[in-house]
Amino acid sequence: MHPDVRHLGTRTPVRPLDERAMTEARQRQAQLTKPAGALGVLEDASVTLCGIQRTCPPRPLERPAVAVFAADHGVHARGVTPWPQEVTASMIENFRAGGAAVNVLARQAGAEVYVVDMGVAADVEADEHVLDRKIRRGTSDLAAGPAMSRDEAVAAIMLGTDVAQQLLAAGHDCLLTGDMGIANTTASAALVAAFTGAEPADVTGRGTGIDDPMHAHKIAIVQVAIERSAVTDDPIETLASLGGFEHAGLVGFVLAGAAAGVPVVLDGLIAGSAALVVQAIEPAALGYCFAGHRSAEPGHRIALQHLGLRPLVDLDLRLGEGTGAALAFPIIEAAGATLREMATFDSAGVARK
Amino acid sequence: MHPDVRHLGTRTPVRPLDERAMTEARQRQAQLTKPAGALGVLEDASVTLCGIQRTCPPRPLERPAVAVFAADHGVHARGVTPWPQEVTASMIENFRAGGAAVNVLARQAGAEVYVVDMGVAADVEADEHVLDRKIRRGTSDLAAGPAMSRDEAVAAIMLGTDVAQQLLAAGHDCLLTGDMGIANTTASAALVAAFTGAEPADVTGRGTGIDDPMHAHKIAIVQVAIERSAVTDDPIETLASLGGFEHAGLVGFVLAGAAAGVPVVLDGLIAGSAALVVQAIEPAALGYCFAGHRSAEPGHRIALQHLGLRPLVDLDLRLGEGTGAALAFPIIEAAGATLREMATFDSAGVARK
Repeated sequence: MHPDVRHLGTRTPVRPLDERAMTEARQRQAQLTKPAGALGVLEDASVTLCGIQRTCPPRPLERPAVAVFAADHGVHARGVTPWPQEVTASMIENFRAGGAAVNVLARQAGAEVYVVDMGVAADVEADEHVLDRKIRRGTSDLAAGPAMSRDEAVAAIMLGTDVAQQLLAAGHDCLLTGDMGIANTTASAALVAAFTGAEPADVTGRGTGIDDPMHAHKIAIVQVAIERSAVTDDPIETLASLGGFEHAGLVGFVLAGAAAGVPVVLDGLIAGSAALVVQAIEPAALGYCFAGHRSAEPGHRIALQHLGLRPLVDLDLRLGEGTGAALAFPIIEAAGATLREMATFDSAGVARK
Repeated sequence: MHPDVRHLGTRTPVRPLDERAMTEARQRQAQLTKPAGALGVLEDASVTLCGIQRTCPPRPLERPAVAVFAADHGVHARGVTPWPQEVTASMIENFRAGGAAVNVLARQAGAEVYVVDMGVAADVEADEHVLDRKIRRGTSDLAAGPAMSRDEAVAAIMLGTDVAQQLLAAGHDCLLTGDMGIANTTASAALVAAFTGAEPADVTGRGTGIDDPMHAHKIAIVQVAIERSAVTDDPIETLASLGGFEHAGLVGFVLAGAAAGVPVVLDGLIAGSAALVVQAIEPAALGYCFAGHRSAEPGHRIALQHLGLRPLVDLDLRLGEGTGAALAFPIIEAAGATLREMATFDSAGVARK
């Protein structure tokens, strides 16, 4: 694929999922006290967990972490959203104080929340859970030229890798993606269009909720960006041209999670568009990814199809932050628990058909 | 509606959901730090919880209970399933030992599991979590005549009511439905056809997994039962004619949960067909019901449409037992938590658009 970039920062190749553990998981699912296949997608998820952890049954996921990659976007100046740019920074303070939706849903799921400043336009104070990985105070306007330089994109990927490794070193055993950045659905739509070939009008949604004229304008901006951006088979170049610093950070985060052999739970549109970059760099990394949910954003539906991932939660969320990933985590953990805890027909003395 | 039966056992009418609390919930959702509507179905669920509990924000649901209503079916003798009837009783022992799928998923969700013997063909030992409410050792063959008498149906409803009241008296604050009974998808399909007017071929699925000839035979049996069963606007009569003792127990359980003002989480096809009976008896009770999931069984899709309920989980499960309800419970609780714990724009000092 792209041997020069796919091990960026990790220097470890992503291994294919362990076939032996997955075969053992399928065989065990067939012996559990239920009709074959009756747990549906939970059975698939349990098999994937075994493939990721290279053992059956899978170990419990006891310390999940959500990393909310935050950045601002030069395209904000084009009027693609009614929200002021300073909301990115004030939402970081909300995350820090524990009052945002992702904080609530992560608490419910038993997950710890970290924020990663990849490129917020304002000053952000770092602390144990707010990590300073700022590249620059927001990207350049993607409608006028590349959002970032290639070097910035590479650096941002490596910083995302570094965040994953820091969380894993701290004992976290499952990585959930999150994101925050006013105007980031515009950059995400551009990435989805570039990586899937879909039309800007089909991938550009209403984000935080915009009216018809602003929606038409947003589609036009994505169209301009796609036309400006050179068609290239270098995913880093495309990421640099159209993406945000949070997208680049997420690319490294996902690659590093996969390289380390831990499950990665993707959130919605922003994560999905970053995962398209991952897919182009190192398709094997997608084996480690669960699609936490399907967002109401039209571009996310198209991204998931292209990624070949089935979402676990499908409840019209369109908030980002990691909320869909946090909602999905208990389902993934429940899937693993069936392999660990359910009785078999033999052990329970239940007759078969 | 049917004033003679809708307060069966509870002697308390089902109150409409509290409009004042729901209005307050909608207003509060609009002030939380997120774009309006961005939490999708979670916002609707949070509003419903407030309407049920008649307060905003809703109280945490700290002691959910799953009640697995179990019974056998005379129609089993017709060869509608490859599984032997004794599996119903041996699965009860599996529930008692904690080794079934519902035990695992309920543990993950923090829910306690009870089993209710409504009419298992074998002897079942009662204990603190296995409740003896046996009407008879299995229904009569629904293809030959009524599955049960009207008196039996009424008695089974009242016993289901009694189970709900016992669990609520023990401190449980949310009721999840479960079910176990070899051949119960046949009775469920017949109920769905009778209450929705759908064709037997459209509502009759493969249950635990049957081949084409057995599936065709199962459809024919449902067709015979529907033709035999007199068309009536008395839901109790239809329930008695086509249902199982577990369906009747579930009807009372749901009615009593609604009358007591607690949330009820429905599982899959068996619960959905029982909920159609509830809807015909007392439509207001559906306001208290969450559709935990959508089963892979075709009849469940039709039942949910008729009930007007949107499922929270949609992962091709077709196991019953309460597995779909248990998977959904954390999502419902997460919805309530957003109203309790999220910051508002004012409290967090976040600018609005």
